[in-house]
Amino acid sequence: MNQKTNPIETLRREGGSAIAPIRWKAWTLELLDQRRIPWEESWVPLRSTQEVKDAIQQMVVRGAPAIGIAAAFGMVLSACEYSKRQETDIEEWLKKAGENLVSARPTAVNLSWAIKRMLKKARRCLQEDEGVERIPYVLEEEALAIWQEDIASNIAMGRHGAELLPKDGAVLTHCNAGALATGGYGTALGVVRAAHFLGKGVRVIADETRPWLQGIRLTAWELMKDGIPVEVICDNAAGLYMKKGEINCVIVGADRIAANGDVANKIGTYQVALLARAHGIPFYVAAPFSTIDPGMPSGESIPIEERSQSEITSIGETNFGPVNVKARNPVFDVTPGDLVTAIITEKGVLTPPYKEGIKRFA
Amino acid sequence: MNQKTNPIETLRREGGSAIAPIRWKAWTLELLDQRRIPWEESWVPLRSTQEVKDAIQQMVVRGAPAIGIAAAFGMVLSACEYSKRQETDIEEWLKKAGENLVSARPTAVNLSWAIKRMLKKARRCLQEDEGVERIPYVLEEEALAIWQEDIASNIAMGRHGAELLPKDGAVLTHCNAGALATGGYGTALGVVRAAHFLGKGVRVIADETRPWLQGIRLTAWELMKDGIPVEVICDNAAGLYMKKGEINCVIVGADRIAANGDVANKIGTYQVALLARAHGIPFYVAAPFSTIDPGMPSGESIPIEERSQSEITSIGETNFGPVNVKARNPVFDVTPGDLVTAIITEKGVLTPPYKEGIKRFA
Repeated sequence: MNQKTNPIETLRREGGSAIAPIRWKAWTLELLDQRRIPWEESWVPLRSTQEVKDAIQQMVVRGAPAIGIAAAFGMVLSACEYSKRQETDIEEWLKKAGENLVSARPTAVNLSWAIKRMLKKARRCLQEDEGVERIPYVLEEEALAIWQEDIASNIAMGRHGAELLPKDGAVLTHCNAGALATGGYGTALGVVRAAHFLGKGVRVIADETRPWLQGIRLTAWELMKDGIPVEVICDNAAGLYMKKGEINCVIVGADRIAANGDVANKIGTYQVALLARAHGIPFYVAAPFSTIDPGMPSGESIPIEERSQSEITSIGETNFGPVNVKARNPVFDVTPGDLVTAIITEKGVLTPPYKEGIKRFA
Repeated sequence: MNQKTNPIETLRREGGSAIAPIRWKAWTLELLDQRRIPWEESWVPLRSTQEVKDAIQQMVVRGAPAIGIAAAFGMVLSACEYSKRQETDIEEWLKKAGENLVSARPTAVNLSWAIKRMLKKARRCLQEDEGVERIPYVLEEEALAIWQEDIASNIAMGRHGAELLPKDGAVLTHCNAGALATGGYGTALGVVRAAHFLGKGVRVIADETRPWLQGIRLTAWELMKDGIPVEVICDNAAGLYMKKGEINCVIVGADRIAANGDVANKIGTYQVALLARAHGIPFYVAAPFSTIDPGMPSGESIPIEERSQSEITSIGETNFGPVNVKARNPVFDVTPGDLVTAIITEKGVLTPPYKEGIKRFA
């Protein structure tokens, strides 16, 4: 990894604590175990596609862009595994590995986006007759490029979005769309970081974000590392603080954006958007263009993942559900585009109607 | 306690499992420790006013009507304490005990309502020259009457409210306004119980209700005891299920209702009411008349309790907040009366405009 393409160096140039949930060294993907934040910073080493898939499924890594990057390295590891075995056609081998990775989580589109890009790269390499033994190196370069581009687009998003934030005021965020959800810097929190480093007096109010508590565990943790003022509230208090006039705008990330601007994001986002509309507060979504799925005409058809009910009935070692209680745990919802004031991308800020804006920028 | 005034007997006649969070025997108030539900059913014996105050403050007992009843027995215990000491004027002594109890929790009005009623009873007894030694017995009778009347009014509320519930369908509730929050049977859940025992196919969707998790810990627990179908969701999913058309109406309790129909209730109630309005779903409040505070012209002036931030950053033994994280924990909010479809009381169902209806029924 040279200096030019070292993602961490890019982050350092932007200031802040250069948090990134991913490391790549000696053909090993290391992921910061986000299940263990804020208790400890432990890194999980992964050396096979299956290990990467399991880590995504078990949420060692989470956040749409970060999942995409991890999956890209999962494809590199698949190419390494192929080199050792050479069992079948490599294209077939990589395609199967990609399908396995994609099946880990259904809602975020960045996962399949990254896999498609890695497969395309491998195909081109084979068409140019570079030899199968080159594939791991070519794919490593592509995965690093995806990572690097993700950080660059977060930084660009930050610059575009910072202009929308108040000079002094409070920004409500839901879930974690920060450094930990991306290659580094963050989408929604990247915009907050940019505003903060530009000298704006931005305070963050973080929804704790049940059931997985990304808001209190991850968002508060990473903002505190960068010295950005943050207060946590339970999800139930967002409406109260909006009514009291204490929230100037809302900014969240996205797991998938349909061609009409409908936004799939963490469960609860839809109701925060409705509350913002009811109080006349701008509601912004920050996401890279790779989160936009042109094949999805509206949010209706975006698959919504349901996870285990144990995420509702327990936290850590503490189980608080009555014996045999039934719980339902849809982990995403869809916010109609007409509740979204603007979508902040690396290419610029989109405003309604989104269908046209998305086509124009694509 | 004779059969006629035995509250538990009244509950048994209504069917169900006759859950009540209060016991009174041998001049001892026993409270079901609601901090320990659903893990264990343990009863905390209380023998002094101070012990009752501490139990209310620490939420051994919670729920506006249950707090009122517990405080009434706290006044009985104060009279017993006086009998042992006879330090000063008994009226002065009881007044001080009442002030101490009222200071335990500021938002629910039933607490001060019950104290006022107990003080009035004591005063009348003294005016009628019954002798100071009679006061504990007279107050015991009054506390039992308050308890008995609370159950009777819940049952009446249930009858009035059951007509509003769908013949088959799902009712969303927030927090616990059930048997555990009252003398027994419940306000919001009393209406659900009545509909269930009348043969309506009512299913409950219970918001888990962060931070204290009354929904999953208490509401699910008591409905499961009565065989009423219940599913728990995290608070963030209410909007999603409303949008999907899976919720037919919302019903909640209240901690204080202003003269114009504004409703103070558990944090998150306001946003559930806004979501219900946005989806065209009826939003009902069930509460006894003692919850209406005619001295409060609107919800603006209702004091909102803020509790320790540890309720946000930890559950049981599990602490999940980053070190030194700041959290804010307002535990109630105010829902404007114009978001409330109807207020179900023991005297009948009120509809807007509430100011007139409240005056008429009072």
